[in-house]
Amino acid sequence: MKIAFIIYDMMTTLDFVGTYDPLTRLKTMGFINDLRYDVCSNKNKIISAEGLEITADKILNNLSQYDFIVVPGGEGVKYIAQDKEFIEWIKTAQDTTITSVCGGSIILGLAELIKDKKATTHPLLMENLKKFTSKVTDKRIVEDGNIITARGVTSSIDLGLFLCEKIAGKEIRVKIQKQMDYPNYNYD
Amino acid sequence: MKIAFIIYDMMTTLDFVGTYDPLTRLKTMGFINDLRYDVCSNKNKIISAEGLEITADKILNNLSQYDFIVVPGGEGVKYIAQDKEFIEWIKTAQDTTITSVCGGSIILGLAELIKDKKATTHPLLMENLKKFTSKVTDKRIVEDGNIITARGVTSSIDLGLFLCEKIAGKEIRVKIQKQMDYPNYNYD
Repeated sequence: MKIAFIIYDMMTTLDFVGTYDPLTRLKTMGFINDLRYDVCSNKNKIISAEGLEITADKILNNLSQYDFIVVPGGEGVKYIAQDKEFIEWIKTAQDTTITSVCGGSIILGLAELIKDKKATTHPLLMENLKKFTSKVTDKRIVEDGNIITARGVTSSIDLGLFLCEKIAGKEIRVKIQKQMDYPNYNYD
Repeated sequence: MKIAFIIYDMMTTLDFVGTYDPLTRLKTMGFINDLRYDVCSNKNKIISAEGLEITADKILNNLSQYDFIVVPGGEGVKYIAQDKEFIEWIKTAQDTTITSVCGGSIILGLAELIKDKKATTHPLLMENLKKFTSKVTDKRIVEDGNIITARGVTSSIDLGLFLCEKIAGKEIRVKIQKQMDYPNYNYD
């Protein structure tokens, strides 16, 4: 089981970390000892929308080797829209399960991964997402085949828990949720 | 208005980022343009409990210059318990408003900042916290004078919103909460 967390300049840090926390607990809490995860980017160090510098583990590596890809959103999406190399890189994930938080689904749209797929995004970006699919769906987590999209920033935590349950079952998701002290898991 | 976000090796990243997101929105959403915030540590780069490398803005700088300090928890708390330099550094925050998430309140205890103060921590650490104060309180956010402590990992988001309201008022807290797509603000 291998997961890639995508990071990039001007992303919203919580979009990434809210999903990273529950998913990495699959390993740190001892449920899946051979879980591997990488923080992947198009450069060695990124600066988030808030100004945080984070170092990537892998740079522009082929994403087809992963089972799950997590794509955050943020102000940086507008720069990625102009970055053909980044979009081509994301396309290498096309045969994996590709997930996104907030404006991350716009990146999936730019990479032509959500054509005719049900998908969601931040409430303020719903109209923008309609450029990429006719099936924009205003729910907190939306799954359609290999595409799983989450709504605004804090739905990152719900997406992480949703993926924990998908990977390891409900009982383990409930244990992780309890350890995270998260009373209101909400995927609807 | 100046805020210091403390980071250190083996901290839980979400403890930090869950508070960092709403508080930095006070600036990025244009509510407090002269808000300043620094990511402060005892070293230039830290590696979180999950393996994430984050760069600090300031190293062992005097914390008395800030209005608010945010201290996360995580596995690293047990190493800090042996690190006199780190504890002495945290003590320089004693005249500010000092806040913590999860095991961060243990660090406040080690720095002798919560004697006789009501305080909370992760449900599994309540007994440990009793070494430092007789007033351990099992609520999600606990405020006692200049000490504001939050419970487990995801209460970082509630702490951030609680501080947004304290700094800028309820109306702005509600706007930030809505932008974060966070339906269940919970401080009790």
